Amino acid sequence: MPELRKPYLLYLGDSTHPTDAKTACGLRDWCPDDVIGEWSLPQATVSVGLPRLSPADAAARGAGSLVIGIASVGGRVPDSWLPDLDAAIASGLDIVSGMHTRLTSFPSLLAAAQRHGVRLMDVRHSDATFPAGTGNKRTGMRVATVGTDCALGKKYTALSLTNALRARGAKATFRATGQTGIMIAGQGIAIDAVVADFIAGAAELLSPDNAPDHWDVIEGQGSLFHPAYAGVTLGLLHGSQPDCIVLCHDPSRLTIEYRPNHPIPPLADAVAQYLTAARVTNRNVRLAGVSINSSTLSDEEWRTYAECVSTELGVPVCDPMRGGLDAIAASVLGQGH
Amino acid sequence: MPELRKPYLLYLGDSTHPTDAKTACGLRDWCPDDVIGEWSLPQATVSVGLPRLSPADAAARGAGSLVIGIASVGGRVPDSWLPDLDAAIASGLDIVSGMHTRLTSFPSLLAAAQRHGVRLMDVRHSDATFPAGTGNKRTGMRVATVGTDCALGKKYTALSLTNALRARGAKATFRATGQTGIMIAGQGIAIDAVVADFIAGAAELLSPDNAPDHWDVIEGQGSLFHPAYAGVTLGLLHGSQPDCIVLCHDPSRLTIEYRPNHPIPPLADAVAQYLTAARVTNRNVRLAGVSINSSTLSDEEWRTYAECVSTELGVPVCDPMRGGLDAIAASVLGQGH
Repeated sequence: MPELRKPYLLYLGDSTHPTDAKTACGLRDWCPDDVIGEWSLPQATVSVGLPRLSPADAAARGAGSLVIGIASVGGRVPDSWLPDLDAAIASGLDIVSGMHTRLTSFPSLLAAAQRHGVRLMDVRHSDATFPAGTGNKRTGMRVATVGTDCALGKKYTALSLTNALRARGAKATFRATGQTGIMIAGQGIAIDAVVADFIAGAAELLSPDNAPDHWDVIEGQGSLFHPAYAGVTLGLLHGSQPDCIVLCHDPSRLTIEYRPNHPIPPLADAVAQYLTAARVTNRNVRLAGVSINSSTLSDEEWRTYAECVSTELGVPVCDPMRGGLDAIAASVLGQGH
Repeated sequence: MPELRKPYLLYLGDSTHPTDAKTACGLRDWCPDDVIGEWSLPQATVSVGLPRLSPADAAARGAGSLVIGIASVGGRVPDSWLPDLDAAIASGLDIVSGMHTRLTSFPSLLAAAQRHGVRLMDVRHSDATFPAGTGNKRTGMRVATVGTDCALGKKYTALSLTNALRARGAKATFRATGQTGIMIAGQGIAIDAVVADFIAGAAELLSPDNAPDHWDVIEGQGSLFHPAYAGVTLGLLHGSQPDCIVLCHDPSRLTIEYRPNHPIPPLADAVAQYLTAARVTNRNVRLAGVSINSSTLSDEEWRTYAECVSTELGVPVCDPMRGGLDAIAASVLGQGH
């Protein structure tokens, strides 16, 4: 996937539900230096608190892309957005979208982009072809976030851990594998959009050879225990060849989300299965920590829970929203906390 | 994937190396009633022993498709084959290919197919879209072949086991997941060509609800221990929800083929990992048998080896080429041998 052009103008369309703006909030929070403003239709009521800039104004201030920062019904670009997207294209901005419907499926946008020499970047999709995985060892160090389920903090943990590693003076790069992560990083591979035969091969390309003391922090996808997505999870894990894994978990979730007949295994089992799987491409892989989404726990419950899990598994247990991931960063680096 | 039109005329191109005709031999051996002849260029020296029929003659005798039955250098259709393919199209035959290069990438073939109302079937590729896996239990019984590596007999075992189950009076259907299997069955899904997110979903469609006493015998792909293809293997396993697995192994192979740094685990470990993975979608999954490619062993070595593995794992150990799979079929059906 070619690199995205930053900085971004965040587009909020006609949104009236603050929860629809998850992508825009993620970009504002995780790459604040890369977002210079927001724009929306007059009927929109949602804002993410950035300066309001028209596409032309944003382009004049150096913006590289308009990023669709909200979810729409059915993942489709509604016709009401097209004039704004046209204006952005006419101002020389690339359009970046993580929606299911491709921007390139709109002939009018495609023609306009062609005319103005800008790119329509559908980061959820992948037209690139990848080689099969080799399994060959690469230089540099890698840590991957893995989960007991989907949607419980693997991206958030990878981003927080990247910052925590840097705060300890380590060289660290966040490697994005999903659409929001790709927008934040400006690059990456939407791993679940790759043809099945090439998952591991694509993951190998995502974290190429690097300096021996450099850490790639790889955003995990899906879960080994998810009946739909475990293939993506395993291929990504194998291609990543992680030296460390960080297990992400939400203790309030007892079964896979939307799959009530599929229980989440005990944490020790989950760790054992992830390590067994990861050893196929890195025999020295170890668990560096557990990252918990503890939003449903009181302070006292959280302290007790974290201590209990930490004693059982012998690694730091942190919540990035509750004290940060420094202890896990220390564990990744093999340093005392 | 729409059903292929049988019977087949097997095409051998300009082949002069008998080993190139693996696909044609597989079709001749596994669906003999569905192949009515072979055809090749004058310079070809390879034959699979079928009556020689021109495309026009084959069409006159009721053939539905010309199947490219040989491998070519680079997986590409050479220009020298095009006149024969054109003649087949003009005779009203579909063309079926398992090659990397798509038939549909030849504008002349595409135009001819359009003109004559026939189909170009690239069974290695998949343009179909699939839903995500649900994990919901389906009616009917399923057995999946799984392997310690690629290319050691998972298709052969699934086909043999289908016959062995039928010989015991059971209802059984072979479910194809790779190009040769699809040609043999006339239908199936090239699972490694599916977009990663939908591997399990495609596998769910491959073996739909069926009669309670019906067995789907699902052709496995790749291996959990292969650094490139394990994601395909796991997604296929999860979507298949097998009640039984049959492990396929070649004792002469100590490391993954072409990946000398990737050891094949001990059989007991391999079985444990496959069963753990399969339990995500079927808690009652069990090992029904081990299918061995024993071509490198003497009769005495084979007897000793089979007894040793059978004692260790507590299931029948067979070689489909050396006595057949009846003992494994009995184990699948829960019958005494």
